[in-house]
Amino acid sequence: MDIIRVSTNSRSTSVAGAIAGVVREHDRAEVQAIGAGAVNQALKAVIIARGYLTLDGIDVICMPMFTEVYIDEQERTAIRLVVEPR
Amino acid sequence: MDIIRVSTNSRSTSVAGAIAGVVREHDRAEVQAIGAGAVNQALKAVIIARGYLTLDGIDVICMPMFTEVYIDEQERTAIRLVVEPR
Repeated sequence: MDIIRVSTNSRSTSVAGAIAGVVREHDRAEVQAIGAGAVNQALKAVIIARGYLTLDGIDVICMPMFTEVYIDEQERTAIRLVVEPR
Repeated sequence: MDIIRVSTNSRSTSVAGAIAGVVREHDRAEVQAIGAGAVNQALKAVIIARGYLTLDGIDVICMPMFTEVYIDEQERTAIRLVVEPR
Protein backbone atom coordinates (compact mmCIF):
# COMPACT_ATOMS: atom_id res chain seq x y z
CA MET A 1 0.00 0.00 0.00
CA ASP A 2 1.53 3.29 -1.09
CA ILE A 3 1.75 6.28 1.19
CA ILE A 4 -0.28 9.25 -0.07
CA ARG A 5 2.12 12.20 -0.12
CA VAL A 6 0.60 15.65 0.24
CA SER A 7 2.16 19.02 -0.57
CA THR A 8 1.02 22.58 0.03
CA ASN A 9 -0.26 22.65 -3.54
CA SER A 10 -2.23 19.39 -3.35
CA ARG A 11 -5.97 19.74 -3.87
CA SER A 12 -7.74 18.57 -0.72
CA THR A 13 -10.63 17.03 -2.62
CA SER A 14 -8.30 15.02 -4.90
CA VAL A 15 -6.31 13.77 -1.90
CA ALA A 16 -9.59 12.98 -0.13
CA GLY A 17 -10.70 10.86 -3.06
CA ALA A 18 -7.40 8.98 -2.95
CA ILE A 19 -7.69 8.41 0.81
CA ALA A 20 -11.27 7.14 0.50
CA GLY A 21 -10.30 4.82 -2.36
CA VAL A 22 -7.35 3.33 -0.47
CA VAL A 23 -9.44 2.84 2.72
CA ARG A 24 -12.18 1.10 0.72
CA GLU A 25 -9.62 -1.22 -0.91
CA HIS A 26 -7.12 -1.80 1.91
CA ASP A 27 -9.12 -0.86 5.05
CA ARG A 28 -6.44 1.68 5.92
CA ALA A 29 -4.61 4.63 4.34
CA GLU A 30 -1.45 6.50 5.24
CA VAL A 31 -1.01 10.16 4.38
CA GLN A 32 2.29 12.01 4.76
CA ALA A 33 3.05 15.72 4.81
CA ILE A 34 6.03 17.93 5.60
CA GLY A 35 5.54 21.55 6.65
CA ALA A 36 2.54 23.52 7.90
CA GLY A 37 0.92 24.12 4.50
CA ALA A 38 1.10 20.46 3.52
CA VAL A 39 -0.09 19.27 6.94
CA ASN A 40 -3.08 21.61 6.67
CA GLN A 41 -3.98 20.25 3.21
CA ALA A 42 -3.56 16.68 4.45
CA LEU A 43 -5.84 17.20 7.43
CA LYS A 44 -8.48 18.91 5.31
CA ALA A 45 -8.31 15.95 2.93
CA VAL A 46 -8.85 13.52 5.81
CA ILE A 47 -11.92 15.49 6.92
CA ILE A 48 -13.36 15.42 3.40
CA ALA A 49 -12.52 11.70 3.06
CA ARG A 50 -14.37 11.03 6.34
CA GLY A 51 -17.43 12.56 4.70
CA TYR A 52 -17.07 10.38 1.58
CA LEU A 53 -16.59 7.22 3.66
CA THR A 54 -19.48 8.03 6.00
CA LEU A 55 -21.71 7.79 2.92
CA ASP A 56 -20.42 4.21 2.54
CA GLY A 57 -21.16 3.50 6.20
CA ILE A 58 -17.46 3.58 7.14
CA ASP A 59 -16.59 5.69 10.19
CA VAL A 60 -12.86 6.43 10.03
CA ILE A 61 -10.57 7.88 12.65
CA CYS A 62 -7.10 9.31 12.30
CA MET A 63 -3.91 8.47 14.20
CA PRO A 64 -1.26 11.14 13.72
CA MET A 65 2.43 10.39 14.24
CA PHE A 66 5.85 11.82 13.52
CA THR A 67 8.13 10.04 11.08
CA GLU A 68 11.64 10.82 9.89
CA VAL A 69 12.22 11.07 6.17
CA TYR A 70 15.28 11.84 4.09
CA ILE A 71 15.07 14.41 1.33
CA ASP A 72 18.28 15.26 -0.54
CA GLU A 73 20.21 13.48 2.26
CA GLN A 74 18.63 15.86 4.81
CA GLU A 75 16.62 14.40 7.67
CA ARG A 76 13.18 16.00 7.94
CA THR A 77 10.35 15.34 10.35
CA ALA A 78 7.15 14.52 8.52
CA ILE A 79 3.68 14.05 9.94
CA ARG A 80 1.96 10.83 9.02
CA LEU A 81 -1.78 10.38 9.36
CA VAL A 82 -2.99 6.80 9.56
CA VAL A 83 -6.66 6.68 8.57
CA GLU A 84 -8.63 3.55 9.45
CA PRO A 85 -12.10 2.44 10.48
CA ARG A 86 -12.91 3.16 14.09
CA MET B 1 -15.30 21.23 28.95
CA ASP B 2 -13.50 24.11 27.28
CA ILE B 3 -12.16 23.91 23.76
CA ILE B 4 -8.37 24.18 23.59
CA ARG B 5 -7.64 26.94 21.10
CA VAL B 6 -4.30 26.79 19.29
CA SER B 7 -2.53 29.55 17.37
CA THR B 8 0.57 29.56 15.18
CA ASN B 9 2.55 30.77 18.19
CA SER B 10 1.28 28.10 20.61
CA ARG B 11 3.96 25.81 22.00
CA SER B 12 3.14 22.25 20.95
CA THR B 13 4.37 20.74 24.21
CA SER B 14 2.23 23.11 26.32
CA VAL B 15 -0.84 22.37 24.23
CA ALA B 16 -0.02 18.66 24.45
CA GLY B 17 0.04 18.87 28.23
CA ALA B 18 -3.35 20.58 28.19
CA ILE B 19 -4.82 17.93 25.86
CA ALA B 20 -3.50 15.08 28.00
CA GLY B 21 -4.87 16.72 31.17
CA VAL B 22 -8.34 17.24 29.70
CA VAL B 23 -8.47 13.67 28.32
CA ARG B 24 -7.46 12.25 31.72
CA GLU B 25 -10.16 14.30 33.44
CA HIS B 26 -12.99 14.28 30.89
CA ASP B 27 -12.12 11.26 28.67
CA ARG B 28 -12.17 13.57 25.66
CA ALA B 29 -10.58 16.83 24.50
CA GLU B 30 -11.40 19.24 21.69
CA VAL B 31 -8.71 21.30 20.00
CA GLN B 32 -9.48 24.11 17.56
CA ALA B 33 -7.21 25.89 15.08
CA ILE B 34 -7.64 28.36 12.22
CA GLY B 35 -5.05 28.58 9.46
CA ALA B 36 -2.21 26.32 8.35
CA GLY B 37 0.30 27.36 11.02
CA ALA B 38 -2.17 26.83 13.85
CA VAL B 39 -3.42 23.52 12.41
CA ASN B 40 0.16 22.29 12.20
CA GLN B 41 0.83 23.22 15.84
CA ALA B 42 -2.43 21.60 16.92
CA LEU B 43 -1.66 18.34 15.16
CA LYS B 44 1.88 18.24 16.56
CA ALA B 45 0.38 18.78 20.02
CA VAL B 46 -2.01 15.85 19.50
CA ILE B 47 0.91 13.61 18.51
CA ILE B 48 2.87 14.62 21.63
CA ALA B 49 -0.24 14.18 23.80
CA ARG B 50 -0.69 10.67 22.37
CA GLY B 51 2.80 9.93 23.67
CA TYR B 52 2.00 11.28 27.15
CA LEU B 53 -1.27 9.33 27.32
CA THR B 54 0.28 6.11 26.05
CA LEU B 55 2.44 6.21 29.19
CA ASP B 56 -0.83 6.17 31.18
CA GLY B 57 -2.09 3.23 29.13
CA ILE B 58 -4.55 5.42 27.21
CA ASP B 59 -4.53 4.96 23.42
CA VAL B 60 -6.15 8.03 21.89
CA ILE B 61 -7.31 8.64 18.36
CA CYS B 62 -8.25 11.86 16.64
CA MET B 63 -11.38 12.79 14.72
CA PRO B 64 -10.86 15.91 12.62
CA MET B 65 -13.80 18.04 11.48
CA PHE B 66 -14.58 21.45 10.06
CA THR B 67 -16.45 23.95 12.17
CA GLU B 68 -17.61 27.49 11.44
CA VAL B 69 -16.57 30.22 13.85
CA TYR B 70 -17.18 33.95 13.91
CA ILE B 71 -14.26 36.31 14.49
CA ASP B 72 -14.96 40.04 14.32
CA GLU B 73 -18.31 39.18 12.72
CA GLN B 74 -16.49 37.33 9.93
CA GLU B 75 -17.27 33.66 9.35
CA ARG B 76 -14.12 31.53 9.30
CA THR B 77 -13.67 27.81 8.85
CA ALA B 78 -11.76 26.28 11.73
CA ILE B 79 -10.49 22.75 12.08
CA ARG B 80 -11.51 20.95 15.23
CA LEU B 81 -9.71 17.85 16.45
CA VAL B 82 -11.65 15.65 18.83
CA VAL B 83 -9.22 13.52 20.82
CA GLU B 84 -10.60 10.50 22.66
CA PRO B 85 -9.67 6.96 23.69
CA ARG B 86 -9.83 4.48 20.86
